[in-house]
Amino acid sequence: MKKTYKIALVGATGLVGSELRKVLEKSSLSITSLRGFASSNSVGKSFSFRDQKITIEPLEKSRLEGQDILFFCAGSAISKEYIPLIRSKNALIIDSSSAYRMHKDVPLVIPEINAHAIKNHSGLIASPNCTTTLMLMALAPLHKTFGIRRIVAATYQAASGGGQKLINKLLQDTKNYLTSTQTEDPMPYGFNLYLHNSALQTSRYTDEEIKMLTETHKILEDDTIKVTAMCVRVPVLRAHSIALNVELGTSFSLSEIYEHLQKMPGLQLMEDFTSNRFPTPFDVTEKNDVYCGRIRKDTSAENHLELWVVGDQLLKGAALNAVQIAESFALLDKETF
Amino acid sequence: MKKTYKIALVGATGLVGSELRKVLEKSSLSITSLRGFASSNSVGKSFSFRDQKITIEPLEKSRLEGQDILFFCAGSAISKEYIPLIRSKNALIIDSSSAYRMHKDVPLVIPEINAHAIKNHSGLIASPNCTTTLMLMALAPLHKTFGIRRIVAATYQAASGGGQKLINKLLQDTKNYLTSTQTEDPMPYGFNLYLHNSALQTSRYTDEEIKMLTETHKILEDDTIKVTAMCVRVPVLRAHSIALNVELGTSFSLSEIYEHLQKMPGLQLMEDFTSNRFPTPFDVTEKNDVYCGRIRKDTSAENHLELWVVGDQLLKGAALNAVQIAESFALLDKETF
Repeated sequence: MKKTYKIALVGATGLVGSELRKVLEKSSLSITSLRGFASSNSVGKSFSFRDQKITIEPLEKSRLEGQDILFFCAGSAISKEYIPLIRSKNALIIDSSSAYRMHKDVPLVIPEINAHAIKNHSGLIASPNCTTTLMLMALAPLHKTFGIRRIVAATYQAASGGGQKLINKLLQDTKNYLTSTQTEDPMPYGFNLYLHNSALQTSRYTDEEIKMLTETHKILEDDTIKVTAMCVRVPVLRAHSIALNVELGTSFSLSEIYEHLQKMPGLQLMEDFTSNRFPTPFDVTEKNDVYCGRIRKDTSAENHLELWVVGDQLLKGAALNAVQIAESFALLDKETF
Repeated sequence: MKKTYKIALVGATGLVGSELRKVLEKSSLSITSLRGFASSNSVGKSFSFRDQKITIEPLEKSRLEGQDILFFCAGSAISKEYIPLIRSKNALIIDSSSAYRMHKDVPLVIPEINAHAIKNHSGLIASPNCTTTLMLMALAPLHKTFGIRRIVAATYQAASGGGQKLINKLLQDTKNYLTSTQTEDPMPYGFNLYLHNSALQTSRYTDEEIKMLTETHKILEDDTIKVTAMCVRVPVLRAHSIALNVELGTSFSLSEIYEHLQKMPGLQLMEDFTSNRFPTPFDVTEKNDVYCGRIRKDTSAENHLELWVVGDQLLKGAALNAVQIAESFALLDKETF
């Protein structure tokens, strides 16, 4: 018998929440009801879901009880405040924030890579950092065979990673530039870029960069992998790109690499060496799959591979992955009973 | 006695040529006359230089003869066509294009790094690739002491590297996006980025990426240095950024690194770890100096350094470096006689 689920969406009006509603609409999940929660600004507003009108409710503990699957995509602070209040064995919370990702009793899941970790959940599963997710979609299939030793990553991250507010800043700053409108902003975002401004640690790495190390260890279940990343915010709206230089543990041929990448669900190769065409943020916007290309042997060092990875930050980088976690859970749930 | 020079500028109306005129105006060079050459579209137009009106002349061999210093910044094809016709021991040609950079009898010069190479010229000196120049301004001071073994670079290159045409495309594509104007362009540049589209070689590296290897070898006079680069065009107008991961030949402390970087003329440190502020393309636009920051030890490997370098592609990346070559030449010229 197919199970059905009462679903709650916390952060229903945010950038990730809005995408999540769209992904859920098309999902194979059997949904009895969907309830949407958001901050007081949005309470009373409504959205349509599978021909039903859903009215946004205020975020209150009592309203979150009795649900089967709860998606949290309202940021770390909200997750830290509400998840401890409602976490139980009778419901599954899927948290898109970074709040619980590194907790030992919280699986951190990209279903194509480590769906098996879902069964260890105790009421809470975390969806990983967007950049880490996109990167690992291309690297996980290589790790098993070739053993990744070290990753040097440089990112090209879109405004969407900073929410609607940052998208609005990019659009407004761009318009200001085009209309020669003077502002006193010392760091305008239009036609400009900057090192990712998440908190800096004493190692001089930002939290965003550190996530690419720690979350990789947890998802690939291998803490011998070395990772260094320089994360950069570029004036792009919603897809992230990553330049990757990867040291493998063994020698390899490019045809072996292609063989593994081509088998990876959710990963598309897009490269045309004749016309010099590789994936761009525009190509992947609103696409579920992660795209990679310009795969080559690094001529500067043995057993090193280089590749270019681009993916929609809001979909596989956030909303889609969260829904896929729910779908994988539902599949296990069905098999169990 | 101070020497004076008759100067010719080939490509006087292009993006680099226009910057070169401005840099020359402020230069210490003693200039008897300046003549400007360009394609037929621009012939007859004029510009002002040190209160004189200079009328653009057509590009003809006979008109280029009898000059003392000739700047070529009209692209490789023009350099290849005209330089062989006029190259002599009686004049110095400074070529900003890639046409002759790797020729054995042509010094490739960044004056702060290898001004000594100027004296070996036989009528022609090349100014290096913009990205290579910006990168080496930060790395050359480290090479002598620590011996650079390998560089992994990811670039964030501005539209200016593709000339006024590419700047116009970026502006137009951005306006089209903002006004929801439909186009059939499969790869719009507004709010988008793409792997650098210079010619791809069978190694799957582009010419732009290969220049970062070959020109580094020539300028640092050390072909043991390994370089791999992924070059990316970002929607920024005129300054390039580079994320660098560098393997040094010895252990180092950050204070030693700072000591060497701080001594480098033309290089500025810009980093504020407290306010999380590092150089951006806007910070360095129209600045002569190259800026670097976020200097740190790579925690993923021994003896590896990471840093972020940003510089104005049109100035130190092109026009300024060419004028500095002329100024260094003039200094030697004066000392010789």
